[in-house]
Amino acid sequence: MADNRMVRIAEIEIDPGQLDAYKALLAEEIAASVAQEPGVIMLHAVAERDSPHKVRILEVYASHAAYEAHINTPHFLKYKTGTVDMVTALRLVEVDPILLAAR
Amino acid sequence: MADNRMVRIAEIEIDPGQLDAYKALLAEEIAASVAQEPGVIMLHAVAERDSPHKVRILEVYASHAAYEAHINTPHFLKYKTGTVDMVTALRLVEVDPILLAAR
Repeated sequence: MADNRMVRIAEIEIDPGQLDAYKALLAEEIAASVAQEPGVIMLHAVAERDSPHKVRILEVYASHAAYEAHINTPHFLKYKTGTVDMVTALRLVEVDPILLAAR
Repeated sequence: MADNRMVRIAEIEIDPGQLDAYKALLAEEIAASVAQEPGVIMLHAVAERDSPHKVRILEVYASHAAYEAHINTPHFLKYKTGTVDMVTALRLVEVDPILLAAR
């Protein structure tokens, strides 16, 4: 597999009172990104069971250019502006794949 | 999507001197699991770029039963016994999917 891929884990904390609204906006954004952007390879978003306001997203883009295009799409900008007052902390962890495997 | 899925993030710290050997064993185990076990839906393993001995794996199984079967396979047991002296810390974080999407 050619590896220009950009892989990252976003660790996001959400205002608990706005968690349902946040998750709806995030799911909409993920669905649109994967459906419309060939350069968005996967966006896997989960919430910690014991701390559901702590969200993590495994993000894989085909390239850094694909990521740059992604963050300028209308659906991403809608998510970003719509959630700005819901997000209380954001940490972006750059990672390198060891093996990404799915059936 | 029916949701009996079991989703988890493993956070694993590795003895830095044994990191290459660990990654080889992990990659072998992941490849075998996804190839041979219908109940292993995805295993996405990454290393933190700034702390490469910190490995994270997003694990998705079709069900808890599929997970129980997985941890009794020869390839998993080979990984587990082969890496026991390489792993310096292990934290298993149970999570709930918000949306898992890949193209």
